[in-house]
Amino acid sequence: MLSTASQVIRCKGSTPTENGGSPEILFTSLCHTDVYFWEAKGQNPVFPRILGHEARGIVESVGEGATDLEPGDHGNAKNVLTANRRKATCVISSESTLTGDEYTVTHVGCVAKINPLAPLDKVCVLSCGISTGLGATLNVAKPKKGSSVAVFGLGAVGLAAAEGARIAGASRIIRVDVNSSRFEHAKKFGVTEFVNPKERKKPVQEVIAEMTDGGVDRSIECTRNIDAMISAFECVHDGWGVAVLVGVPHKDAVFKTHPVNLLNKRTLKGTFFGNYKPRSDLPSVVEKYMNKELELEKFITHEVPFAEINKAFDYMLKGEGLRCIIRMD
Amino acid sequence: MLSTASQVIRCKGSTPTENGGSPEILFTSLCHTDVYFWEAKGQNPVFPRILGHEARGIVESVGEGATDLEPGDHGNAKNVLTANRRKATCVISSESTLTGDEYTVTHVGCVAKINPLAPLDKVCVLSCGISTGLGATLNVAKPKKGSSVAVFGLGAVGLAAAEGARIAGASRIIRVDVNSSRFEHAKKFGVTEFVNPKERKKPVQEVIAEMTDGGVDRSIECTRNIDAMISAFECVHDGWGVAVLVGVPHKDAVFKTHPVNLLNKRTLKGTFFGNYKPRSDLPSVVEKYMNKELELEKFITHEVPFAEINKAFDYMLKGEGLRCIIRMD
Repeated sequence: MLSTASQVIRCKGSTPTENGGSPEILFTSLCHTDVYFWEAKGQNPVFPRILGHEARGIVESVGEGATDLEPGDHGNAKNVLTANRRKATCVISSESTLTGDEYTVTHVGCVAKINPLAPLDKVCVLSCGISTGLGATLNVAKPKKGSSVAVFGLGAVGLAAAEGARIAGASRIIRVDVNSSRFEHAKKFGVTEFVNPKERKKPVQEVIAEMTDGGVDRSIECTRNIDAMISAFECVHDGWGVAVLVGVPHKDAVFKTHPVNLLNKRTLKGTFFGNYKPRSDLPSVVEKYMNKELELEKFITHEVPFAEINKAFDYMLKGEGLRCIIRMD
Repeated sequence: MLSTASQVIRCKGSTPTENGGSPEILFTSLCHTDVYFWEAKGQNPVFPRILGHEARGIVESVGEGATDLEPGDHGNAKNVLTANRRKATCVISSESTLTGDEYTVTHVGCVAKINPLAPLDKVCVLSCGISTGLGATLNVAKPKKGSSVAVFGLGAVGLAAAEGARIAGASRIIRVDVNSSRFEHAKKFGVTEFVNPKERKKPVQEVIAEMTDGGVDRSIECTRNIDAMISAFECVHDGWGVAVLVGVPHKDAVFKTHPVNLLNKRTLKGTFFGNYKPRSDLPSVVEKYMNKELELEKFITHEVPFAEINKAFDYMLKGEGLRCIIRMD
């Protein structure tokens, strides 16, 4: 162990606890969930708090009983935010009330040990949104080669779901979004067709049924809109269609459908973090990037130093680009 | 081929058509779907029509092009009713406007060739309701050994779903029904606990969540009641729970739930005929009975000759017993 183990690290930092690990965060990326927690609309506001849950760094020290990690290991710290809330006490510096500390404390169960050759400034994006969309397709919807897939929502999560469909060999990937300007960019993610519900007179599920001789084989819903969720379910084919809900809706939203849609042998599923188990599964997602199966570069549209953190929030709030990397230098 | 192939059979019967087969029906059992079609509330009334879709007989002759069956084969004629409507023309005798002809015509694709040693008067019940409930559990819900299963509705289909849970090795089988008099009988089908929603102040999904530390692993809904469908979905455990809808609801029914129930990694599925493919899968269900894994006798509570067909309808309409076998003698 390094000399900082179980000691206070004097920095922008935090304090290790028993069975915790103290990774030095080098890069993080900003996710809508950070905005959600910052605005604190969906839960009790707790401030000051550490945001930045798509973090990537190097283990600096480990607490007693943490046998699976060693100082020097490269890790994706999934749920740093959750870990901070539940497992550790943190001293938050005045510079870092928004995203990331240089050092943070996480429970060892929240750190995934990954390939040390993976580039630090790329794989941080795998800690939340991108894996959520990718896993929703690969682990939950599981489209077969040559099948048709509809993806609702063209943000980073939705494009990651399309990327999953591309990797799975889907022959048709239909993107549904109310913002037509996003369509051209989506082609890079394997998208073959576009539907803008605002430009159609019929409900989008009927439009898709007509395009696909009865419905798509799979659909993945990545908006937070309840009507999109219902459309995503109703646009899959009777007999074998599977719809997967990813977007977290308004707390008062109600999902409504005629049960015959289910009795006709459709399946409706929800997912959280794409059904990946962070610690055991994230290393294999990193490998998908390392062997060029998964193209992460497409998702990274901006990079800023920590001092320009507010720019990253601006990009996110204006819907400009997909992922902004924040360098902790 | 027998001399009747492609000839008019002079009996209570029917006339073979190209690619069809003409089985001699020996036994049939009565299912609620027969009542549904008899009352013709859910579709355009077509009379006269042949009811009796849980039929069991021997192939009498086959039409041209029907290579998979031979005269003398024993078969379960699934969807005789459907086949009559879609594929064949039938001369319906005046004696048999309700259930079954001595001879009927079905498309070869609707006849499952089964073990000739299987008793004629037992396995007919596998052609619809029993297989529907059994398959809903074994093929769709797929409970693991030692898991907990809730079954809504204690009719023949619901009890067959419980029988499936018993065969799968579920350690807890919770039956939900508004009729408490059905509870004692249900123990024969592996049921371990009973809940009557009418006798509880809390919603049944909350009662079940309290009984099972958060929810059952699997639930199967075998009523036609939309509130039971919603309860069946909401009583499964977050993270892995699977709810399967079997009952066909009123055409105006709407399934409503909060989408967070789905996002918490629950799965909602519907099924038709327990996801069995009749022709290829029914023979293996018959084998489950032949090797004593599946106990069919428990489902057969009455038997009448064809002349007393109306008694069979009375039992069904009054909810007395489970299955009534009709002998075509």
